[in-house]
Amino acid sequence: MFFFYLTQSDSANTQSLVEGLERLSKAPIIKQSHIGIPAETTRDVVENSYDVSWLVFFHDATAQESYQTDPIHLQFVKECSHLWKKVVVYDSVNA
Amino acid sequence: MFFFYLTQSDSANTQSLVEGLERLSKAPIIKQSHIGIPAETTRDVVENSYDVSWLVFFHDATAQESYQTDPIHLQFVKECSHLWKKVVVYDSVNA
Repeated sequence: MFFFYLTQSDSANTQSLVEGLERLSKAPIIKQSHIGIPAETTRDVVENSYDVSWLVFFHDATAQESYQTDPIHLQFVKECSHLWKKVVVYDSVNA
Repeated sequence: MFFFYLTQSDSANTQSLVEGLERLSKAPIIKQSHIGIPAETTRDVVENSYDVSWLVFFHDATAQESYQTDPIHLQFVKECSHLWKKVVVYDSVNA
């Protein structure tokens, strides 16, 4: 699970990152993914200061490791990393 | 997306919360869910100090609102809220 905080938070940059993630999500190594933006919810516990979320499921830990050096991933970083100032990643395995 | 930080981080409390979330995940209002624990990944950007993650997809915003007062949800809070000291929630909608 990735949460991106943009360098300049506006709709054009959000759109650029979303399009980059759409290309990235086509990587065959990815099992399931979802690209999101903050919902308009306001409960106390909600962290909504990020700009774009990306949920990704890999088939297994080996696939996740391979992804780190996958050309599609490296291309995405090259094209889009200037867009964000911070990214927070939560890696989870089945409980 | 929910990240729970336990009051007392040990395997017994983790198991209790996971079991609570398994019961909660059976709520008919929920479309898809995944219960996780931190993966053993160590990249700089990875936040792995949480104890349990819970991913949940609702059919739509109305379902998410209904969930807030769903008896299964309220029962879960009653039974399990003593287990955590902090919960961080990220609500996303389709980009």
